[in-house]
Amino acid sequence: MEKIPVGVLGATGMVGQQYVTLLRGHPWFEVRYLAASPRSAGKTYAEAAVGRWNASGGPMPEALRGVIVSDANDVGAAQKAAAAGGCAFVFSALEMDKAATAALEEAYAAAGIPVISNASAHRWDPDVPVLVPEVNPQHTAVIPAQQKNRGWSRGFITVKPNCSIQSYTIPLFALLQAGFEARRVIVTTMQAVSGAGYPGVASLDVIDNIVPYIAGEEEKSEEEPLKILGAVEGGAIVKANNPRISAACNRVPVVDGHTACLSVEFGGKKPSVDEVKAIWAAFRALPQELGLPSAPEKPIVLREEPDRPQPRKDRLSEQGMAVVVGRVRPCPVFDLRFVGLSHNTVRGAAGGGILNAELLVKQGYLGC
Amino acid sequence: MEKIPVGVLGATGMVGQQYVTLLRGHPWFEVRYLAASPRSAGKTYAEAAVGRWNASGGPMPEALRGVIVSDANDVGAAQKAAAAGGCAFVFSALEMDKAATAALEEAYAAAGIPVISNASAHRWDPDVPVLVPEVNPQHTAVIPAQQKNRGWSRGFITVKPNCSIQSYTIPLFALLQAGFEARRVIVTTMQAVSGAGYPGVASLDVIDNIVPYIAGEEEKSEEEPLKILGAVEGGAIVKANNPRISAACNRVPVVDGHTACLSVEFGGKKPSVDEVKAIWAAFRALPQELGLPSAPEKPIVLREEPDRPQPRKDRLSEQGMAVVVGRVRPCPVFDLRFVGLSHNTVRGAAGGGILNAELLVKQGYLGC
Amino acid sequence: MEKIPVGVLGATGMVGQQYVTLLRGHPWFEVRYLAASPRSAGKTYAEAAVGRWNASGGPMPEALRGVIVSDANDVGAAQKAAAAGGCAFVFSALEMDKAATAALEEAYAAAGIPVISNASAHRWDPDVPVLVPEVNPQHTAVIPAQQKNRGWSRGFITVKPNCSIQSYTIPLFALLQAGFEARRVIVTTMQAVSGAGYPGVASLDVIDNIVPYIAGEEEKSEEEPLKILGAVEGGAIVKANNPRISAACNRVPVVDGHTACLSVEFGGKKPSVDEVKAIWAAFRALPQELGLPSAPEKPIVLREEPDRPQPRKDRLSEQGMAVVVGRVRPCPVFDLRFVGLSHNTVRGAAGGGILNAELLVKQGYLGC
Amino acid sequence: MEKIPVGVLGATGMVGQQYVTLLRGHPWFEVRYLAASPRSAGKTYAEAAVGRWNASGGPMPEALRGVIVSDANDVGAAQKAAAAGGCAFVFSALEMDKAATAALEEAYAAAGIPVISNASAHRWDPDVPVLVPEVNPQHTAVIPAQQKNRGWSRGFITVKPNCSIQSYTIPLFALLQAGFEARRVIVTTMQAVSGAGYPGVASLDVIDNIVPYIAGEEEKSEEEPLKILGAVEGGAIVKANNPRISAACNRVPVVDGHTACLSVEFGGKKPSVDEVKAIWAAFRALPQELGLPSAPEKPIVLREEPDRPQPRKDRLSEQGMAVVVGRVRPCPVFDLRFVGLSHNTVRGAAGGGILNAELLVKQGYLGC
Repeated sequence: MEKIPVGVLGATGMVGQQYVTLLRGHPWFEVRYLAASPRSAGKTYAEAAVGRWNASGGPMPEALRGVIVSDANDVGAAQKAAAAGGCAFVFSALEMDKAATAALEEAYAAAGIPVISNASAHRWDPDVPVLVPEVNPQHTAVIPAQQKNRGWSRGFITVKPNCSIQSYTIPLFALLQAGFEARRVIVTTMQAVSGAGYPGVASLDVIDNIVPYIAGEEEKSEEEPLKILGAVEGGAIVKANNPRISAACNRVPVVDGHTACLSVEFGGKKPSVDEVKAIWAAFRALPQELGLPSAPEKPIVLREEPDRPQPRKDRLSEQGMAVVVGRVRPCPVFDLRFVGLSHNTVRGAAGGGILNAELLVKQGYLGC
Repeated sequence: MEKIPVGVLGATGMVGQQYVTLLRGHPWFEVRYLAASPRSAGKTYAEAAVGRWNASGGPMPEALRGVIVSDANDVGAAQKAAAAGGCAFVFSALEMDKAATAALEEAYAAAGIPVISNASAHRWDPDVPVLVPEVNPQHTAVIPAQQKNRGWSRGFITVKPNCSIQSYTIPLFALLQAGFEARRVIVTTMQAVSGAGYPGVASLDVIDNIVPYIAGEEEKSEEEPLKILGAVEGGAIVKANNPRISAACNRVPVVDGHTACLSVEFGGKKPSVDEVKAIWAAFRALPQELGLPSAPEKPIVLREEPDRPQPRKDRLSEQGMAVVVGRVRPCPVFDLRFVGLSHNTVRGAAGGGILNAELLVKQGYLGC
Repeated sequence: MEKIPVGVLGATGMVGQQYVTLLRGHPWFEVRYLAASPRSAGKTYAEAAVGRWNASGGPMPEALRGVIVSDANDVGAAQKAAAAGGCAFVFSALEMDKAATAALEEAYAAAGIPVISNASAHRWDPDVPVLVPEVNPQHTAVIPAQQKNRGWSRGFITVKPNCSIQSYTIPLFALLQAGFEARRVIVTTMQAVSGAGYPGVASLDVIDNIVPYIAGEEEKSEEEPLKILGAVEGGAIVKANNPRISAACNRVPVVDGHTACLSVEFGGKKPSVDEVKAIWAAFRALPQELGLPSAPEKPIVLREEPDRPQPRKDRLSEQGMAVVVGRVRPCPVFDLRFVGLSHNTVRGAAGGGILNAELLVKQGYLGC
Repeated sequence: MEKIPVGVLGATGMVGQQYVTLLRGHPWFEVRYLAASPRSAGKTYAEAAVGRWNASGGPMPEALRGVIVSDANDVGAAQKAAAAGGCAFVFSALEMDKAATAALEEAYAAAGIPVISNASAHRWDPDVPVLVPEVNPQHTAVIPAQQKNRGWSRGFITVKPNCSIQSYTIPLFALLQAGFEARRVIVTTMQAVSGAGYPGVASLDVIDNIVPYIAGEEEKSEEEPLKILGAVEGGAIVKANNPRISAACNRVPVVDGHTACLSVEFGGKKPSVDEVKAIWAAFRALPQELGLPSAPEKPIVLREEPDRPQPRKDRLSEQGMAVVVGRVRPCPVFDLRFVGLSHNTVRGAAGGGILNAELLVKQGYLGC
């Protein structure tokens, strides 16, 4: 099939770079449109990103080095590119403040350009799905309501959740689906510096150090899973009641890969450690059934060694798209303990966004 | 007063080095006897420790560079030194296996040499106190029973707890004393590499990485606080029933300083965040009243900034003898959350051992 | 063509793991025989390497997890495997002491099994070539003399140089070939911890630290290039006279990738900075002409940014097989300065060994 | 004696913090005036520095937490403070651009307030001494000419050199003084992140990485030693001709402590390794003779272990005021090789500035 032309907003930032890198050789999508801040606009992509290239997936694709970066604020430019067949939808990796991001993403959608966003601006709009394709692919059903609410025809917005939560949301959903509902969760995360973008975390703050605080992160980690586990009712997503989550988020001197230590209390039936392992090892979901190109073969990779998962050694499991779990053991206070790991700039950012777009193609929302 | 001559067993290891460094200029104690493995015996201390010196307190004291290291297995040598006024008691920083350490420490005690130990070998003997002088100074009352049980006259053994637990045991005790009993605790630790000794953790395991496992550490972190909070009954220490603790222990790329993130559920009365802060800021205990030379002025240092404590920036608070707490806030699952930090090779090892010895001097057990 | 069955000696070590990883999917070679220390012998490869897997190329290949590891000291076992079509030659990543390695590699060669070695034991034997296929592919001409000298028929030994020298030996050779002879070189290296194997460098020695010393490394860095640049005369390699090299070798907290800062003085003609850049950018050699599967398209990758090469960002250039050079500028004391980088466990170890084997196949020495 | 009241310009920056920390308890000086950018002006020092405190010397002095920070651009405020006995001179740790810093420091001097500067703005003015008190204390003799040239009465400016050069300028001077003149030097530095201030180096640029470039640093490292080794002639400093220096400057993941690897060629007589060691071990200079409070007892600390100096383990030698040298050995290309280390924010910044001020007091230039 002919490739779908796509754009990347925020293409010079950390996540934008990762989009561009991960889309190299993608079977369905081809990057044709790059936009960033006015400071970068008018430069070649190579010039605009010089000294800032940090994508863990490798160097800037040769084919894009000479592409002229557009001004992300200029929605008309994207519309022209779209009309000319250069941009069927955009991946948004904007790093502006929340209100500006919200307004700009809406402007793209209003202009008929679907926005597959990595930003947090729209995560709490009831008519915008926060997608984890293995968990809530049915939430895309709110898209028609979203378009109607906002008077948009072809355009719409979907978002992905904060990078800190993949490592436990998918495993908890797998247990829920098997009949074991987590009621209370206490989680401590140890998050990589790439999660803060570039320049992001100062080296003086993380060499021989950790920072036990990331602004806004604990709230997102506690609340977003409830929307993802929620239900679509009357054109809106109603959030779930469980689990209640307490999150403590730390920044650690790791380049990529967020690790989480969890204690889980179940309501009702409580699974044995062996049941939990069996459920996770066997877990497959819609992206695997549909054969989405970026879908990991195993969404959950179970490690049995006593000292895994570890971010540097496990983050690239399934090309960075799997959640890696280990240290599955009973909890003396709650019921179950485990450690989860996910690659924050792949599964937790650009890779997750691409998987969302693949799902939307198969569901017909990005029928280009 | 004339200084008390002391010995250090395991003087070439990480903790032994820290003892020697922290005792430089100590007002009561003077290191006169150094013992280590047979491999080091017969060498000068400078020769024996070359290429292994990692003490965070600074270089090897000049006065000890030329001291000939004895064989730690040769208790007779220590006895001769003691008889000659060169060793009134020993700090044990032995790094042998548990059974060998237990036997050797007992041999010193049997030979009339009190052992102030950093090792874990005797931590679960009911007649051996696990001392945190701010918490359970009254546990030394089991020493006469210990001597009677084992047929020792002058010698005895006291131990200090594992380095992972100071950061929360003292704060939880302060709350308990104020009438607020922690019933359940879920704690995740992020522990420094110096806790594993030298060579200890391989650089390939912690550069750009964390290891979510430390052998035996979670068990110690869950159980030792209960003995420390226990009561002396009939010549033995009976452990407390609360709190029930679930610990997840991680190794992180930090040189010194163990950080812990806690969620605490109280039984009975529940303190407000402001009450907790006030209790911790005001906390003083016996070491402060007695003016022990190594006692921190404030055993608990409360930080109000949103992103503290941090190991590199806060570990040296009160010369490394304080617990630094911060991020005191409600827990959406339990009642209270906070972050605690303590310097693992100072308060958590050699500094803690020295404070124990100071307490024992004041209580008359090391009346030399 | 049918794949050539190969063995890996020292398969559980750092370099052995890298061989196994890089050979996954190799078009010519297939790993069928794994040998390691007696401690590992008899276990499956997965069991033998548990807790020690550090290969930067990814997880252990599934197909090898169940292979039973042989005792590397048991040459007979390898001979049997060879006879049964399971091992046409071996890659040696032995980590024994020099004399033992020398003897064991000779035993394999005497038994008719060619040894493509990563070890240093035979680097100074005049009849053993130290191969860098882009530089001295003609040195394999000593192999017949080597076999005659030692009474071997099919077996022989080739080695690769120390990992610290690729980053400058190839660039200096490219200049030499273009008529510019380096006469004197002063080089400071900043070497990754993976160069020391596992467990290798203690974390306490490199977190927030560098170690300005690596045993034996400066001597190798100064002398090996002279043998590589030497000539085959009468069945032996006679080393070159130039350049005279002074090396200062440092261990830095980097996982993979050795960086070198050089000042070079030329004898005779002196190239301009632009000439140097042009020579390096255009450099191609025999491995590129022969299309060897592991040969980088560009053996020397020239970076023009002011702050490159950097180990984490550039080490994987050309799948880790290129030397990356940058900061090409005049030297106020000598003539030219530049920074070179190579991936020490790929080009500098297993990848270099594989490229050597590919060259030997094409030259008919491994005609299996 | 009554303490001299001093001010710190740029008090909230990395070096300003270090000044404040090192001056705690200083026997001659007392910080009474703090100035920083307009953003900080009007806040208490504690408020202004919150989240930015990185001084390696410990927490903010309690006595200064409540001091109201002045606007550094408001010279009149400093004048008023001076008139009121609150500021006899200022330490300048300004972090503005070069022209702005130059103008502002001149304004202070014109206003009668001597400026002891850490900034580079005036380093190449022939009438401004670049002081290293062990090397060129006689350069202060240009101060009267400087005051005359610029029409200043009481005010003047002295500066200290770039932090990268202490580790070799003092050792090379000690050899020069003993009759051994370095003619050519090739040096590679490995510099700590604190040298770049805060936030300074991004963690994504130095975790598992090094950056082989620091803007402007190589030029300073090559040229400043020549001014320091120069002579005062007719009211100006004339720079020395030797040594010619080639510097390669790298940023490494170390918090504090710049390390340098040197190869040195001598003109005329060449010292043996033993002579070099003896000269360095015996070196004492004017600050030691005068007993300046911040002068290290040994300006050069010689380490004989094969693997020292190391930044984390040696940077605090002599309270961070010594240069630590080691690995003294012949160079196969030049004559001598060694490794030098100095603490960049102590000796290389605030500590060096304080020592300069102490010298100036003894010489009568700060006769307050």
